[in-house]
Amino acid sequence: MKVAYQGEAGAFSETAARRLLGPEMTGVPCHSFDEMFAAVGAGEADCCIAPIENSLAGSIHRNYDLLLDSDLTISGETSMRIVHNLIAPPDVALDHVRRVYSHPVAIAQCTRFFAKNPHIEAMPVHDTAGGVRLIMERGRKDEAGIASAAAAEIYGGRVLLENIEDNAQNFTRFFLLTPPERAQDVVPRETTRRWKTSIIFRVANKPGALFRALGAFAIFEIDLSKIESRPIEGRPWEYAFYLDFIGKLDDANVVRALDNLRELAEMLRVLGSYPTRW
Amino acid sequence: MKVAYQGEAGAFSETAARRLLGPEMTGVPCHSFDEMFAAVGAGEADCCIAPIENSLAGSIHRNYDLLLDSDLTISGETSMRIVHNLIAPPDVALDHVRRVYSHPVAIAQCTRFFAKNPHIEAMPVHDTAGGVRLIMERGRKDEAGIASAAAAEIYGGRVLLENIEDNAQNFTRFFLLTPPERAQDVVPRETTRRWKTSIIFRVANKPGALFRALGAFAIFEIDLSKIESRPIEGRPWEYAFYLDFIGKLDDANVVRALDNLRELAEMLRVLGSYPTRW
Repeated sequence: MKVAYQGEAGAFSETAARRLLGPEMTGVPCHSFDEMFAAVGAGEADCCIAPIENSLAGSIHRNYDLLLDSDLTISGETSMRIVHNLIAPPDVALDHVRRVYSHPVAIAQCTRFFAKNPHIEAMPVHDTAGGVRLIMERGRKDEAGIASAAAAEIYGGRVLLENIEDNAQNFTRFFLLTPPERAQDVVPRETTRRWKTSIIFRVANKPGALFRALGAFAIFEIDLSKIESRPIEGRPWEYAFYLDFIGKLDDANVVRALDNLRELAEMLRVLGSYPTRW
Repeated sequence: MKVAYQGEAGAFSETAARRLLGPEMTGVPCHSFDEMFAAVGAGEADCCIAPIENSLAGSIHRNYDLLLDSDLTISGETSMRIVHNLIAPPDVALDHVRRVYSHPVAIAQCTRFFAKNPHIEAMPVHDTAGGVRLIMERGRKDEAGIASAAAAEIYGGRVLLENIEDNAQNFTRFFLLTPPERAQDVVPRETTRRWKTSIIFRVANKPGALFRALGAFAIFEIDLSKIESRPIEGRPWEYAFYLDFIGKLDDANVVRALDNLRELAEMLRVLGSYPTRW
């Protein structure tokens, strides 16, 4: 199984992929989200793992857009706590560290560590895992990186300090995306019996239009787990909605709610129906 | 008027603040969003300007959280297109540029520029404007930065190439936040007669609860402009909702809709009522 993800080996996306698909999968690292979708489109990967929202930074609209532009379907999801660790070559002592390399977003999430250690300089690089690769290649006695425990393991680094992030409530949700004809082969491990379905729809720009659209779910007692409006480019005051709800696409009440919504909506697309892990 | 913002002089936040409040305001640059809110709390600034959502990256939940933890109110909003420019000292020719400094998010949004110019190396730094300050201080003939036109002006750089971002649909929406007792003094310029109100509320975890909550707005014919659910930490399967709607807090139909919602919701907080620019 070849799985495309954005970042270098040891990236949080890769860990999420291994958790969903098992350690024996083969990672296909990509520079960007666009490249990752293209890798699946070109058959260079069987599926990809896309971060879709973060508990601090919000929905990643670019991946929703790329998903809409593709014919991929969501076949699984997982959520990962983002834990930042200080990582150095095995012979480096914490007292000797003077420069720490990481992605600026990770650096910004560890302000308390840098405030407590004013003699340590933060060095921004493109990628958390890439920063660890860099300090391991250089092998200096005064340099460290901030990344996942997986990155430490991959590049042979030692974790000097765990959990140095300011805010422990830092979670990222990932979608496993598969070409529809392959969706049967790419089965996430250890799933619950709870299923979720994700859709995107657009209603006319009238007061109460969203209210009526949600009526379809209220009538059939379907639990919503996410709703988000998004302005439509070039159509001021019109919105598309991302909606996730509990239920499987072939459940009787889901079939009826979607039939109902289809009559009200100007556009409706099912992004996938998938087992959820939590 | 002292206005706190995150980033260095020339940051997109600063440009948004000057657009809302006029060029004569005094900027108070801050390292982080937390520091920015603290500056207003401590009276070091009269107000602050907080990016709240980006058309590619989504809502910035951290700023919603900080707003909820503070007693600040929204007194204005604006939206800015994020344009990336290649900026160098006035005597540097495009052909000679070999290294380009910018924030990794900006670098990631200019992949086509780097693909077309494989001899140019991307150098990540903390801040777009800070990258321009750096290359101007160094004054080398082969270095440039990627930042706003405002940053070029502030640090005396020359724009070598405009609009080098891959995706032109890159907009950030900013809130102007003010202590309630100062809200009368901090008046955004050039506003329309259209007002918006932003609230956050929580409903019981039952199918149809959101549907009934939105009924309050449908009955009084109030147009919604944003809705977003957010999971509540430590309370699985419960959600808070960010809601923006057209109308002023003292409009008769708004008063009645909010009274109605207050009876259904477990929590309701008005974040502010403000003139909108678009």
